[in-house]
Amino acid sequence: MKNFTFYSPTFFAFGKDTENDAGKYVKRFGGSKVLIHYGGGSVVRSGLLDRVKKSLEEAGISFVELGGVKPNPRSGLVYEGIELCKKENVDFILAVGGGSVIDSSKAIAAGTLYDGDFWDFYTGKRVENALPVGTILTIAAAGSEGSPDSVITKEEGMFKRGASGDALRPRFSILNPALTQTLPPYQTAAGITDIMAHLHERYLTNTKEVEVTDRLIEGLLLTMIHEGPRVIEDPDNYEARANIMWAGMMAHNNSCGVGRSQDWNSHNIEHELSALYDCAHGAGLAVTMPAVFRYVYKHDVMRFAKLAVRVWGCQMDFDNPERTALEGITALERFLKSIGMPLSFAELGAKEEDIPTLVKALCYGDGRTGSISGFVTLDENDCTKIYQMMVR
Amino acid sequence: MKNFTFYSPTFFAFGKDTENDAGKYVKRFGGSKVLIHYGGGSVVRSGLLDRVKKSLEEAGISFVELGGVKPNPRSGLVYEGIELCKKENVDFILAVGGGSVIDSSKAIAAGTLYDGDFWDFYTGKRVENALPVGTILTIAAAGSEGSPDSVITKEEGMFKRGASGDALRPRFSILNPALTQTLPPYQTAAGITDIMAHLHERYLTNTKEVEVTDRLIEGLLLTMIHEGPRVIEDPDNYEARANIMWAGMMAHNNSCGVGRSQDWNSHNIEHELSALYDCAHGAGLAVTMPAVFRYVYKHDVMRFAKLAVRVWGCQMDFDNPERTALEGITALERFLKSIGMPLSFAELGAKEEDIPTLVKALCYGDGRTGSISGFVTLDENDCTKIYQMMVR
Repeated sequence: MKNFTFYSPTFFAFGKDTENDAGKYVKRFGGSKVLIHYGGGSVVRSGLLDRVKKSLEEAGISFVELGGVKPNPRSGLVYEGIELCKKENVDFILAVGGGSVIDSSKAIAAGTLYDGDFWDFYTGKRVENALPVGTILTIAAAGSEGSPDSVITKEEGMFKRGASGDALRPRFSILNPALTQTLPPYQTAAGITDIMAHLHERYLTNTKEVEVTDRLIEGLLLTMIHEGPRVIEDPDNYEARANIMWAGMMAHNNSCGVGRSQDWNSHNIEHELSALYDCAHGAGLAVTMPAVFRYVYKHDVMRFAKLAVRVWGCQMDFDNPERTALEGITALERFLKSIGMPLSFAELGAKEEDIPTLVKALCYGDGRTGSISGFVTLDENDCTKIYQMMVR
Repeated sequence: MKNFTFYSPTFFAFGKDTENDAGKYVKRFGGSKVLIHYGGGSVVRSGLLDRVKKSLEEAGISFVELGGVKPNPRSGLVYEGIELCKKENVDFILAVGGGSVIDSSKAIAAGTLYDGDFWDFYTGKRVENALPVGTILTIAAAGSEGSPDSVITKEEGMFKRGASGDALRPRFSILNPALTQTLPPYQTAAGITDIMAHLHERYLTNTKEVEVTDRLIEGLLLTMIHEGPRVIEDPDNYEARANIMWAGMMAHNNSCGVGRSQDWNSHNIEHELSALYDCAHGAGLAVTMPAVFRYVYKHDVMRFAKLAVRVWGCQMDFDNPERTALEGITALERFLKSIGMPLSFAELGAKEEDIPTLVKALCYGDGRTGSISGFVTLDENDCTKIYQMMVR
C-alpha cells in the first residue's frame, strides 16, 4: 500500500425529507448570503426549489438564484455565476441538482475567490481556496457530493477537464433518495453506470497488497448489481435507491481508493464522447468501459479474474484464468445492457469518422503529449483501436 | 434504511514515517500549546516519543507531557490531565498510543472545556465541546482514531462507560502501520478481535434493506480474515498491517454502520469483564462474542446464515439454514483460537462465582434498569446464561 492522506469533512444528512433542513445546515456552516444554483425545470416542477427557498427563508438566510446548468456543465455559466457571486457578495453556494450542478457550483466557488481565470484550475492548478458549497443531491451518479473534484466543459474547443482540491469538498450534502424517484430510467441507469465506473477505475491498480480497498470496492459493486435492477424495475423503490445513493457517495469520496494507483482512462476516453456528442456521461461510460477493459486486461489477467469471480460470481478457470477474466467483462456488458445502457457508438449517436478528432482531443488536449496514463499508458494508436472497438 | 447523519472530518495521514509530520499537522489544525498524552514505556523505548517531540519542536510548538495511561484507561488520570491542561493553557491534545491513550485524551479534551465533572459525559450527557485532539496510532484495534467515542473506567466501582459526540472526533490521525510491528502477538490479535467485533455489532441489525452497509462490513471482515493470520505468522509484515490498520479505522468511523440499528451487547457484556479483571478488551470480546451470538442467533437465523455464507464461506444449507448460521459462529471461534485468542472464562482469568457481580454491574450500572438493549434486549437472566456459556 502506498502512503496517502485522506480527508472527507463533508457533513451528510441522509434520508426522507432532509432537504427541509437546508437552511439550518447553511447557517451551521457559516452561510448568510446564498447562491442557489440549479439546472433545468425538474427541480422547479417538482417543488423542490420552493421547499429549499422556504427552508432558507425560515432560517433567515437571503439568496440569489442561477439556474440553467446543463449536463456536461459549461464554462459560460460558470463565468456568469462568478460575476453574480462577486456582485451580490455571496458567501455560500447551494447546489440543488446532480453532479453537473454540483460541479458547476464548485467551479463558481473556486472562481469567486480567485483573481485569474477559473479555467486555470481545470488545467492543472490545484484549488486551495473556494467559497463553501452545500449540495442537495437529485441523482446518484457522479459522487461529487462527497468528492474534491469538479468537471467542466470549456465551450471553446469543447474540452472537458477536471479540477481538484480539498477546498472543493462540500461542507454538507443532503441525500434524500426519494428525490431521485422521479428520474427517467435512462438517467437512473446512467447514474448507476457512472458509480460502477468510479469503482472499476479504482479497482484497476498496479499497486499490490491492497486487499482492504479491493474488498470495499467489491462490496460496493455487489451492492450496485443487487440494487440496480430493482430500481430499474421499480423506480419508486426507496430502499434500493437509498442503497445506491450511499454506495454512490462511498464510491467516490475515495475511502475505497486510498493507498493505490488508480485508472481513469475510461473516464478520460469517455469525456471526449460526452464533450463532442453531449451524451449522458454514464451512457458514454457504458460504451467505453468494456472496450477499454478488453484492450488492457492482458496486463493483469489475475486482477480481472479476481473481479470476475468475486463480483460477477464467475467460476474461476484455474487452467485458463484469461477465460475467467473475459467472462467478467462480458458479465459487465450484459448487466449494462439489462439496465438499458448503450454498448456501441451507434447506440450512443457517435460516429466512426470522428475517431481521429476524438483521439486528437484526448491525447493532445490541454497539455497532454500524445498519451493518457492510468492502469496502462495508452497512446494515439491504442486510443484509436479502443474507439474502433466501440463501433462494432 | 433509516435516516441518518454522518460526519467524519478527521484528516488521516497514512503510511511510513508519517509521524514525523506531527508538528506540521498540529500547526495546521490550530494547536500552539500541546499536551502529549501517552501510556507506558513502549513509545519511550521505541524512540517514537522523541521523534514526535522533535517534530513539534521543529514546528515551533511548545508542549507538556502526561504519560501513564493504562489499558482500560482510568478516570484518575483524566482528572490529572484536565488539571494540567487548565494550568498550562493547553489548546491541543496529542495522543501517542492506542485506543486507551486516545480515549483518555478525548476525556481530557472534553473535561478541560467543561465546568462540571467530566464523568457526566460518560453517563449520558452528549459532548458538544472539547479541545482539539490529534492522534498517532500505535495499534489497530479500537478505531478511536476516527470515531466520536471514548470509553473510560471509573475507579470507584470500576464502571466502564462510554461518551460520544462529534466534538470528540480527532482533527487528525497519523496511521503508520510500521509502528504496530513491535506489538506482542497477543495484543495484535486482541486488536484484530476488537475490529471484528465492531463489524459484527454493526452487522447485527434489525433494520431491513441495508445491503450497501452489509456489503461494506462483509468486505472489511473478509479483509481481517485474510490479513489477520498473515500478521500473526509474520509480525513484520507491513502490508498486512497496513490493510488491517485502514480496515480498523473504516470499521468504526461508522461509514459502514449508518442507517441501521446496531448491536453493542457483546461490547457491553465484555466491558464488565475488562473492568473487573483488567483483561485486554479484545481478548474479552473473543470470549464474549461467540456466546452472545449462540444465545441470540435464533432471533434472525437468516442474518447469521448470510454472515456465515458471505464471510466465512460456509455452504448454505437451504433445508436447514440454522445449521449454516451455527457453522458461521463456529468458524468465528476457530478463527479467534487460531490467532491465539481465549475462548473461555478460564483462559481469560475470569471466575464463575463472579457472574452475579458482573450481571449486576451490567444490568444496573449507571442508570440501567435491569437489561441491556441491542439486536436483542437481554435481561439479568439472559446475561447470566450468556456469562455461564463462557465458563465451559
